[in-house]
Amino acid sequence: MPPTIQAHEFKAHCRTTPKDDEDETDVHMRSKTRYADGTVKLRNPNIELMDQDILYHVALGSESHDLREMFGDVKFVCMGGTPKRMENFAHFIMDEIGYKLPAGTQLQDISEFSYRYSMYKVGPVLCVSHGMGTPSISILMHEVIKLMYHAKCIDPIFIRIGTCGGIGVDGGTVIITEDALDGHLRNSHEFTILGETVHRPAKLDKKLARELKSLASADDPYDTIIGKTLCTNDFYEGQGRLDGAFCEFTETDKMNYLEKLRDNGVVNIEMESTIFAALTHHAGIKAAVVCVVLLNRLNGDQVNAPKEVINEWQQRPQILVSRYIRKVLAQHGQLKSLFGQHGSIKSPRRFKLVQQESQAHD
Amino acid sequence: MPPTIQAHEFKAHCRTTPKDDEDETDVHMRSKTRYADGTVKLRNPNIELMDQDILYHVALGSESHDLREMFGDVKFVCMGGTPKRMENFAHFIMDEIGYKLPAGTQLQDISEFSYRYSMYKVGPVLCVSHGMGTPSISILMHEVIKLMYHAKCIDPIFIRIGTCGGIGVDGGTVIITEDALDGHLRNSHEFTILGETVHRPAKLDKKLARELKSLASADDPYDTIIGKTLCTNDFYEGQGRLDGAFCEFTETDKMNYLEKLRDNGVVNIEMESTIFAALTHHAGIKAAVVCVVLLNRLNGDQVNAPKEVINEWQQRPQILVSRYIRKVLAQHGQLKSLFGQHGSIKSPRRFKLVQQESQAHD
Repeated sequence: MPPTIQAHEFKAHCRTTPKDDEDETDVHMRSKTRYADGTVKLRNPNIELMDQDILYHVALGSESHDLREMFGDVKFVCMGGTPKRMENFAHFIMDEIGYKLPAGTQLQDISEFSYRYSMYKVGPVLCVSHGMGTPSISILMHEVIKLMYHAKCIDPIFIRIGTCGGIGVDGGTVIITEDALDGHLRNSHEFTILGETVHRPAKLDKKLARELKSLASADDPYDTIIGKTLCTNDFYEGQGRLDGAFCEFTETDKMNYLEKLRDNGVVNIEMESTIFAALTHHAGIKAAVVCVVLLNRLNGDQVNAPKEVINEWQQRPQILVSRYIRKVLAQHGQLKSLFGQHGSIKSPRRFKLVQQESQAHD
Repeated sequence: MPPTIQAHEFKAHCRTTPKDDEDETDVHMRSKTRYADGTVKLRNPNIELMDQDILYHVALGSESHDLREMFGDVKFVCMGGTPKRMENFAHFIMDEIGYKLPAGTQLQDISEFSYRYSMYKVGPVLCVSHGMGTPSISILMHEVIKLMYHAKCIDPIFIRIGTCGGIGVDGGTVIITEDALDGHLRNSHEFTILGETVHRPAKLDKKLARELKSLASADDPYDTIIGKTLCTNDFYEGQGRLDGAFCEFTETDKMNYLEKLRDNGVVNIEMESTIFAALTHHAGIKAAVVCVVLLNRLNGDQVNAPKEVINEWQQRPQILVSRYIRKVLAQHGQLKSLFGQHGSIKSPRRFKLVQQESQAHD
């Protein structure tokens, strides 16, 4: 029998209760966003009155799928830009937490037929691609938060694993976001709802950020830092690049702008953090953003590190996040039981020989 | 020899010269965005000074690829949200314009290894996916406009083929955008450049819109209309939906908002039109947006038409756009020569028999 993590075991272990030192705001927020049993409650009274809720962009539905059975054990929702990165992460985290698939099965892209996002599930870890930019990730987040509700998930933690440009920070550095700032350096995300402008605080969980930081190892051959993240709606003009299809400012204007960002504590620039922070905070979900720097923007605009180098860099936030996931699972007794178990491959050397033999008779 | 459209033939036929009735603004714009030979000129003096220009998100580069050889014959750039839709469109337009691939070849996703966008080329037609939302499409457009420059394309025409929600318009209706409006009903797109707010007019080519409209057939079993399009940064709260993860307004508020949109001439809502219009206009590129309605928002929020119905609807904008492309190619003598030519399949019946016979010996 495959030693998968069982949903009921996980819930029993991981359910958290409000702490004594929680301030009133937190308690108020919790009553709005959690039921008494700790499952996710939506700040939208309409959903529970609907006959069915179709999560159109992830190809799931509340009546077509048994969402509780499928996703009830999800504790970590990890998101990143591309389907490929999230597929890689799914396989990586599977090894890291010792999660075994039943013989003769493989991971499947749950949202394949939406043609929009990719979603992989590895026990308590959901790995989803979010595309590029705040609108793209916002569609996904609405549907994933609703998924958490339908599946009755308990206190899920959301982590964005991304790439970014650094401000005075070298390529390969891992950055954990302390505060997400919009293009006007406001620590909020601007929504337009029914034609009105609404700002929601772009707050991430500071304790989670510190916990992630503490998991960086002195042996890591790269730095892991915490700092402010600028979130823009464009990669070229919006990030002060000189190499877009248009550029109506000088290199001096650009450098002054980047220096101003640095003076304000900004260490990196990406394109999703404000809405990710605003929507998770509004839903009472503990969240973090961990990105790897692809280039130091004080030195240039073009991403021209070799693909193999970038691929190695992209693993770094994944390694940090996997340490965190392993730690939480271990704390709740979910990890130990999985290690020391044999997977389906007893001897990698003999496995290889059998494979080669088989191929020879193709 | 495959009867492909040759780049030099196409350019000789399609090059347009400024018309006598062009007003001064158009002439001024043209001098900024076109060289004397009609090829695309960038409003960014930095690019021609660069050793190489890496179009990172589409996996192409000005020194790694011979972009002129690869893309010099492109006349139409068609964009849509998902890779799948654009792959389908590439195959569809290939049949429609009678473009033949050399024996033993198939279309390849040119940007496959970017893992971000998909790009297919069918002679003079480039088919590219743009993801969801204005930031995602803006990254692509910067890189595709630069691609047009590097490839020395002459007067390319950009068309977005999308899906949308209708306002008082039934599912299956095809809508050609007259004006693109932002969330505050402004006919512009708001950019944040070096921390400053910049508005650029979201102007589409009215003549192209009328020409597309004229290609709707009385025999089409659906309506094709022209109207104003609202572009939002969110699918749920941003479009007045009651079924997102959050909803802090009533059904009455929502209906009042949708009625207000209708009173302002808005017939549909999508998520890319303002920036698509603003960037093409700024680049002096003739552009249009053609979308099919997935649901009438006055009747509901959920997209719940069956997949087969939606798939058939999604072909409708493609059919209209293909009529336009065929017309332009025919006007320039590029189409006639291709028809009446035999492809690789002489008899579909016998082809099928050979296939079945072959499979039986698998």
